[in-house]
Amino acid sequence: MSTRRYPSFRASLARNGLARLAGAHDALGAVLAQEAGFQAIWSSSLEVSAARCLPDASILSMTEYLEAAARMQKALDIPVVADCDTGYGGNMNVAHMVHEFEAAGITAVCLEDKRFPKLNSFAAGDQSLLDTAEFARKITVAKASQSSEEFFVIARTEALISGLGVEEALSRCHAYADAGADAILIHSKQPTKDQILDFLAGWNGRLPVVVVPTTYPDWHIDDIRAAGVSIVIYANQGLRATVTSLRSTFRSIYEQGQSTSLEEYIASVGEIFALQRMADWQKLDA
Amino acid sequence: MSTRRYPSFRASLARNGLARLAGAHDALGAVLAQEAGFQAIWSSSLEVSAARCLPDASILSMTEYLEAAARMQKALDIPVVADCDTGYGGNMNVAHMVHEFEAAGITAVCLEDKRFPKLNSFAAGDQSLLDTAEFARKITVAKASQSSEEFFVIARTEALISGLGVEEALSRCHAYADAGADAILIHSKQPTKDQILDFLAGWNGRLPVVVVPTTYPDWHIDDIRAAGVSIVIYANQGLRATVTSLRSTFRSIYEQGQSTSLEEYIASVGEIFALQRMADWQKLDA
Amino acid sequence: MSTRRYPSFRASLARNGLARLAGAHDALGAVLAQEAGFQAIWSSSLEVSAARCLPDASILSMTEYLEAAARMQKALDIPVVADCDTGYGGNMNVAHMVHEFEAAGITAVCLEDKRFPKLNSFAAGDQSLLDTAEFARKITVAKASQSSEEFFVIARTEALISGLGVEEALSRCHAYADAGADAILIHSKQPTKDQILDFLAGWNGRLPVVVVPTTYPDWHIDDIRAAGVSIVIYANQGLRATVTSLRSTFRSIYEQGQSTSLEEYIASVGEIFALQRMADWQKLDA
Amino acid sequence: MSTRRYPSFRASLARNGLARLAGAHDALGAVLAQEAGFQAIWSSSLEVSAARCLPDASILSMTEYLEAAARMQKALDIPVVADCDTGYGGNMNVAHMVHEFEAAGITAVCLEDKRFPKLNSFAAGDQSLLDTAEFARKITVAKASQSSEEFFVIARTEALISGLGVEEALSRCHAYADAGADAILIHSKQPTKDQILDFLAGWNGRLPVVVVPTTYPDWHIDDIRAAGVSIVIYANQGLRATVTSLRSTFRSIYEQGQSTSLEEYIASVGEIFALQRMADWQKLDA
Repeated sequence: MSTRRYPSFRASLARNGLARLAGAHDALGAVLAQEAGFQAIWSSSLEVSAARCLPDASILSMTEYLEAAARMQKALDIPVVADCDTGYGGNMNVAHMVHEFEAAGITAVCLEDKRFPKLNSFAAGDQSLLDTAEFARKITVAKASQSSEEFFVIARTEALISGLGVEEALSRCHAYADAGADAILIHSKQPTKDQILDFLAGWNGRLPVVVVPTTYPDWHIDDIRAAGVSIVIYANQGLRATVTSLRSTFRSIYEQGQSTSLEEYIASVGEIFALQRMADWQKLDA
Repeated sequence: MSTRRYPSFRASLARNGLARLAGAHDALGAVLAQEAGFQAIWSSSLEVSAARCLPDASILSMTEYLEAAARMQKALDIPVVADCDTGYGGNMNVAHMVHEFEAAGITAVCLEDKRFPKLNSFAAGDQSLLDTAEFARKITVAKASQSSEEFFVIARTEALISGLGVEEALSRCHAYADAGADAILIHSKQPTKDQILDFLAGWNGRLPVVVVPTTYPDWHIDDIRAAGVSIVIYANQGLRATVTSLRSTFRSIYEQGQSTSLEEYIASVGEIFALQRMADWQKLDA
Repeated sequence: MSTRRYPSFRASLARNGLARLAGAHDALGAVLAQEAGFQAIWSSSLEVSAARCLPDASILSMTEYLEAAARMQKALDIPVVADCDTGYGGNMNVAHMVHEFEAAGITAVCLEDKRFPKLNSFAAGDQSLLDTAEFARKITVAKASQSSEEFFVIARTEALISGLGVEEALSRCHAYADAGADAILIHSKQPTKDQILDFLAGWNGRLPVVVVPTTYPDWHIDDIRAAGVSIVIYANQGLRATVTSLRSTFRSIYEQGQSTSLEEYIASVGEIFALQRMADWQKLDA
Repeated sequence: MSTRRYPSFRASLARNGLARLAGAHDALGAVLAQEAGFQAIWSSSLEVSAARCLPDASILSMTEYLEAAARMQKALDIPVVADCDTGYGGNMNVAHMVHEFEAAGITAVCLEDKRFPKLNSFAAGDQSLLDTAEFARKITVAKASQSSEEFFVIARTEALISGLGVEEALSRCHAYADAGADAILIHSKQPTKDQILDFLAGWNGRLPVVVVPTTYPDWHIDDIRAAGVSIVIYANQGLRATVTSLRSTFRSIYEQGQSTSLEEYIASVGEIFALQRMADWQKLDA
């Protein structure tokens, strides 16, 4: 048997204690996050769908989310954690998903307990959940489908997103832990971190906890660590910065009729070449 | 026969007189350039390869450049002009390329007279050209392979890039015009536009001229128009702005330990939803 | 606007009165069916998934079924009718599917009223249906999402497959006709055509009817036509012949230790070149 | 680091002494060849391009050949040996190719010394070769690009195909061995095996030899082994059998107006389900 090595999220987490992840949708963004120091990349469904100008609503298929994650992983020395939504359907879809993501060198995935097709958690609309047992079965299927012991499955509950409260979130996370999850993700879109703190107060620490401080961006990493969180996802700030930057860049060129005034604010062509590792590749022809 | 309509670059050029194009590599960037007023999108090989952290050196295949262009076109109301490098090989590759890009709704492509595999024009290295007749044959093959009269083929000479001078550039452009090109692109990486002005002074206007003011960004659109240019490509400023923006965004989050300080500088999640046309899509479930 | 033309299934049906379709999963099979005289190709989910050695159970994604259908259409002068299963999820998935298939030059699709993820109709297991109104809504969404008037949507009821009887099948087909379907497909896996004849006796002819005589292969085309059917799909015989042929070919070579004894039974390399249109392509280099 | 295991061609060759390969273009064909006993699968460029009805002339891109090979490998317990033509361009393309095929779990590739774009060896037309040193450099680049020691690179000389004779073939193969090749492939399209026997008489056995007995199908496996060959590729018989089978199947259905007469000659739907491993997958929902 031949073996190929990929950066393992499980090993990274063990080594670093706390993992900070940045959301990305292509290799370029992922490499820039790696450069900044992040321990892993969140292959974000919101970002990947936004890059296509399509809603984050299970419209793009597993194939396309996988392709995005795989392209990022190939350019990185750190692991990708793939946002796999609901697992793209039922149990068979989950098993196929694990086969495919693992074959692409992805060592960690996240599944959430909403119904397929899912809607982005921040959007108004149907946020209803699968029965607990049905989603727990998905977690069991995912774990039974992995071929390497390294593979890491995060079970994400959307209980707070769907308005079910902290008790339901805790109860679900215990069921998902029983089903074999390697970590649990607790998501809230409240304007403060209070719901998350309530959850953490009730959680017994049997599995690492993941948080996504999009609507409570002031929660400092030191406080997050102190609260008992193991993994923090800055899920979409890169995308949001890109939109602002592109919007002003394109407007400037079009309205000013030249691009000189941008030159000092944008990367040089040489910096692009460096990110492409042009010099390394050119040695092949030397 | 069933017909499907795509925005035609030829028609856009006729309607607008002058076309300004912005480089992009995904639908999101392309839509933001459209929003700023550009008449068309340049599906840039430099951008598409940079998004993958791979050199712009014919490493990615036609399949991947096509995929990028097609994904942009699907999200746009304006046409994509696809940077097709050398046509990805010989005459058969050019014919196949035209079949595939046209099938994907792309109404304009650009072919350049460098050898396959090509190197980015701004990189130090081999910039040698095909024989004039051999490249002219590619243009003839491209035109003979199109199925719609709308399809528009730009012949790009790299004579100035390879150090051959303005006379050679003019001579080649006439040969490409004879071969059936719809426009010619004259590229220079000198720090001023002087070479381009020399070329324009010698060109008799038999075909529209395309320029790419990357290294002479101060050339104002009014002066470009006055010099007799029909199409201007701002090829990579969006990418370069994105790199700067992502680099500072990721550094800020990692170093500051929170993302609050970014909030006022980055687009809101609601703005992302708007770009995804979330509200329109949600009507389908209403 | 630029336009590109594809063979229209609607026009073919109008021209020929009766359309006979052969199932295929790649361009080669599709071209051989075209050569035999079929009016259109059925891009079969069973075939496409079997070519990947994966179950026909919504495991492959829309992306992959689309790719298969598009690759076939590019090689054909006759239209592809794409087996689109349940539409790959909910209403948004259906709309996206129509956008994508239409963009790929597919002029006809078929949607079925089973739940996502669906199971192949011949397999033992869950064959339960969506509520009639919910599936009718999918048909309405599909029709509202098309950009060309040529686009043709077949509504397939699995009422007989799920054991609900002819009355339910008729009632559903009327609802789907009301929702805008262009034709209805009535599927049965009984060992005789009797259920289908009962259905046809009760159908008032307001829309063309499609049948799939897999388990009643003796139903002659003249009798099918006389019974009022407009479209007949020979859905998987090509795949099944391929399996038998490959199995015996590979066994023969391996067991006999040479391939001479096969030579008279298999196509020559020259025949392969002819199917690849090698001579036409080579003219480009002449 | 996480590791994933794939069947290694190098290990298979060491274990079996002689490897017999069957050409295939999709997972279904590959699995049927595995079932017959073959030790590995030849992901054939002729087959993959023929399945798309396009010439075997470097028209499809690396992306598409890779996709085909990867899809086969995922369904197999035996290794795929990928026919990688010329390496899809220059040295950078070769390096990228190795990265990509290895990432997809392919443990062996074959590169040939023709110029890009290449033409199928059996076609009349340009069969000219790269300079020996230039191709040897590609082999060196390929070997330097692999990440696992298992990866196996076959250097294929087309010296006999291009009419250069046995001495040139031997000389080239020594240069490719010096450059790091793991095996050499000697191809001939003469109607007998005589050229190959001459080559083998002159070869000193420093590397394993691969042969492709397409035009000398009577060469028995025992004699091939006795002649000192290590790897035999039955490159396209499966494809050629498929064409004959599909042609007669589609004609029969169309001309006879029913498919009953085929039933006894074609696989049952149940056999298709078995190849799809339907029963195993359905256990996930049990």
